[in-house]
Amino acid sequence: MEKKIALLPGDGIGKEVMDGAVEILKAIEEHYYHRFHFQYGLIGGAAIDEMNSPLPQETLQMCRESDAVLLGSVGGPKWDKNPSHLRPEKGLLALRKELDLYANLRPVETVESLLDSSPLKREYVEGVDFMIVRELTGGLYFGKPSERYVKNGEHTVVDTLFYKRDEMERIIERAFQLAQGRKKKVTSVDKANVLESSRMWREVAEEVAMKFPDVELQHMLVDHAAMALIHNPKQFDVIVTENMFGDILSDEASMLTGSLGMLPSASLSATGLHLYEPVHGSAPDIAGEDKANPVAMILSAAMMLRHSFQMEEEAEAIENAVKHVLDSGKRTADLTRKGETPLSTTKLIEEIKEAL
Amino acid sequence: MEKKIALLPGDGIGKEVMDGAVEILKAIEEHYYHRFHFQYGLIGGAAIDEMNSPLPQETLQMCRESDAVLLGSVGGPKWDKNPSHLRPEKGLLALRKELDLYANLRPVETVESLLDSSPLKREYVEGVDFMIVRELTGGLYFGKPSERYVKNGEHTVVDTLFYKRDEMERIIERAFQLAQGRKKKVTSVDKANVLESSRMWREVAEEVAMKFPDVELQHMLVDHAAMALIHNPKQFDVIVTENMFGDILSDEASMLTGSLGMLPSASLSATGLHLYEPVHGSAPDIAGEDKANPVAMILSAAMMLRHSFQMEEEAEAIENAVKHVLDSGKRTADLTRKGETPLSTTKLIEEIKEAL
Ligand SMILES: CC(C)[C@H](C(=O)O)[C@@H](O)C(=O)O
Ligand SMILES: CC(C)[C@H](C(=O)O)[C@@H](O)C(=O)O
Repeated sequence: MEKKIALLPGDGIGKEVMDGAVEILKAIEEHYYHRFHFQYGLIGGAAIDEMNSPLPQETLQMCRESDAVLLGSVGGPKWDKNPSHLRPEKGLLALRKELDLYANLRPVETVESLLDSSPLKREYVEGVDFMIVRELTGGLYFGKPSERYVKNGEHTVVDTLFYKRDEMERIIERAFQLAQGRKKKVTSVDKANVLESSRMWREVAEEVAMKFPDVELQHMLVDHAAMALIHNPKQFDVIVTENMFGDILSDEASMLTGSLGMLPSASLSATGLHLYEPVHGSAPDIAGEDKANPVAMILSAAMMLRHSFQMEEEAEAIENAVKHVLDSGKRTADLTRKGETPLSTTKLIEEIKEAL
Repeated sequence: MEKKIALLPGDGIGKEVMDGAVEILKAIEEHYYHRFHFQYGLIGGAAIDEMNSPLPQETLQMCRESDAVLLGSVGGPKWDKNPSHLRPEKGLLALRKELDLYANLRPVETVESLLDSSPLKREYVEGVDFMIVRELTGGLYFGKPSERYVKNGEHTVVDTLFYKRDEMERIIERAFQLAQGRKKKVTSVDKANVLESSRMWREVAEEVAMKFPDVELQHMLVDHAAMALIHNPKQFDVIVTENMFGDILSDEASMLTGSLGMLPSASLSATGLHLYEPVHGSAPDIAGEDKANPVAMILSAAMMLRHSFQMEEEAEAIENAVKHVLDSGKRTADLTRKGETPLSTTKLIEEIKEAL
């Protein structure tokens, strides 16, 4: 097959881990006789520095003309004091909105050989395998107004949690569809005892559930979910929730696997043009030091092969190679325990390539 | 001393654990020659059933005429389908707002003898001792509009994250004051890369920090905080954050101690009339079974003695008694591990009373 892939490394460790994904994809290209056309684009802080915009028109255009988008990560202290329209994150958020990438899939699966790197006791995390489905183009992230104003002499600020019913419906449906191919259980997370939007969310979830009689629906309050993820993570199959709750819970859930550096994600649209990115951020503290864990980025590339190109075998080949290397005790600094010597980013990439 | 205490048991296990607090307070009364005047009031589902209001005027009035308020917990499936003004939680939220209980203090301290009950590995939670300071009367919980509407034929819903600058200032100041009496570090949690309210929050935190040169200020994004609480909880001294983030993070943090049934909280106002309640909910699944852990409620009573009545010695006596009982291996079902026999609520209360 011949495919156009847009590569947006972004900032910080984004560049380093993107190199890893590209190397692995090139190996796949060879082994399986595909043609991948890679095109690089700027986003985030890198784009602000060069083009004075966190999402240049060229980048967006390039993504639109591609078959899939791979993204590293955006952000860093350098741009922290910028006005809000010139912040790196705005580029990522604008891209999600422009491409209508409403369904963010974050699989959380523990790897046997890494259980000892988790802060949690083995018996809690062994065999954990669930998927967080996070709504990605609505809620507090995009609601208007989001601004400051002075009212009766008082300085005030407002952000807006806004949803259309349709937006809830499509993401919850997606979760149910995914559950059908898994353990047939959906946990819908909300704060229905406080938020009106959550009460609507719960209603929509009930409605959607009627169309999937083979899938069990469970409601859970977000505060309780934050606990349950730690206390009893094995109960989960598919978790579906709105944008901000999903942001918080998925970072929390990453700890089950031992490191945020392990978690890939897919952001799916209705159009067929999808984006893949690691759950982790740009980690400015270790950027440029050849220390970052490239696994999340590489697994994101595998998700791309599976979801965008239907290359199931190729995806599995990557996943198995990663597992093989980790099982053999090789890992980056985020996963080593006292006394173990970590591998560098480039070295781990090499190992994974060889294992392929 | 002579003190008037309003008791609002609420729903579910609220009643059972409240009985425990009252017994312990009566013991304190005797030992230390105080006079506590207890008055019971209805709130939440219990109040809806009897008075058709989650916060009857009588209850509010009684609280206003008291020196402190003790609350159990509210809510339950029985009232889940009620219209929003007739939900149990509305009673609690209205009480917080009416009494202007803006500062919710949630101490998280692990107990040596319970470390094995935590899902986390010992080395991560040993010696954890921090305080979450949650803003309690603003944000998404109270912002208007919070409603559904139809716009161009589309069903939509909105909730509003609203803050006055003054509201941020007073809670952040409170956090810094608390840090001065502790390890002199404040971690301010926000989502400044997305929310305008968080950017204002961060500015206010910087401003307040200038008045406390002896206290270190650290900013942390909420998604990162959700991870850091698990990965490196010992780094924290005082965490300050807005209402919804505080709700989620404090429930998550409870897992460090092994059980949500361990965590007390104090909700402080500027007027001097404060409220004390366990962090846990009404746990309808075990209500009435004499199984609930009364420790959070009893420790909330101890916080009352300390913060409202300046009875430091009495507060410590309770805390030591609780610790003594837990250290001796006696605990309720939420904390027992396989093979251990749990104590009932009433039995544990008795043990604590004896230890006093
Ligand atoms: C960088 C930031 C805007 C982003 C988000 O909050 O969505 C990130 O945390 C993520 O989870 O992808
Ligand atoms: C009962 C509910 C409204 C409440 C909250 O969200 O504040 C509870 O979860 C808490 O943390 O005290």
